Amino acid sequence: MLARDLAVAYPAVESGSSAMEAARLLAGQDLPGLIVTDAEGHPTTILSGTEVLKMAVPRYVQEDPALAHVIDEAASDIFVHRLAGKTVAQLLPERSRELPVVDGDATLLEIAALMARSRCPLVAVLDEQSGSMLGAITLDFLLDRVLAS
Amino acid sequence: MLARDLAVAYPAVESGSSAMEAARLLAGQDLPGLIVTDAEGHPTTILSGTEVLKMAVPRYVQEDPALAHVIDEAASDIFVHRLAGKTVAQLLPERSRELPVVDGDATLLEIAALMARSRCPLVAVLDEQSGSMLGAITLDFLLDRVLAS
Repeated sequence: MLARDLAVAYPAVESGSSAMEAARLLAGQDLPGLIVTDAEGHPTTILSGTEVLKMAVPRYVQEDPALAHVIDEAASDIFVHRLAGKTVAQLLPERSRELPVVDGDATLLEIAALMARSRCPLVAVLDEQSGSMLGAITLDFLLDRVLAS
Repeated sequence: MLARDLAVAYPAVESGSSAMEAARLLAGQDLPGLIVTDAEGHPTTILSGTEVLKMAVPRYVQEDPALAHVIDEAASDIFVHRLAGKTVAQLLPERSRELPVVDGDATLLEIAALMARSRCPLVAVLDEQSGSMLGAITLDFLLDRVLAS
């Protein structure tokens, strides 16, 4: 089985769209991650769920976790309000890791190795000619297929 | 809201149990990760989905991704058979990162910061007295709650 046989439609967000809406999309559909595209629909960043969550965690808490403990419960409950009024592009990580994309002829083992290496449970499948997105493969979907073999 | 208010029952696997069954549990219930416990039910390792998948990817492919490309499609389809006959303990990563566990009085921001730092979308909540597991919190569940606030 090859990537093109497994790729299915997956929601994407443009980098200029609302970060809050992107978080709602992730949570509302229980997605394992988000595909961020440019205006032409080409993936520019693919974020795992924890990377999306990271966009909502203030930098000083990321740098010094002990600080999270001194912020009171009421303020902690609404930390995600930090996303309001921001675009996805404004909150993307500064250092981007390997983009988890494959061509249609990638094997299941190649896809699994890429997910393991990038720690991203979501891979986009691109058409090798046009570079357009054929769809995506999630870790759960991949495991379901290989465990059925 | 605190960790103890959010913790819900979550399936766990003992470190001596079958790695194949652990993968089937993850895939069958669409879990974001696995909680591995000792015989007393205390979490010893918590793996994200990509870390579970990594247990099934041969080391030589992890070290040299180009090798995955030369393995033929039929062999790639069954890479997960590598898990057969192995226990979870036999395939755990050699270097373990921070264990994503919190006490019952951790705030939502502390949990989010821990998920972001450990890149694990799953956190176990422990009773501070006994050390026993009160339950677990997934990234999706956390986001659903904070986005509703």
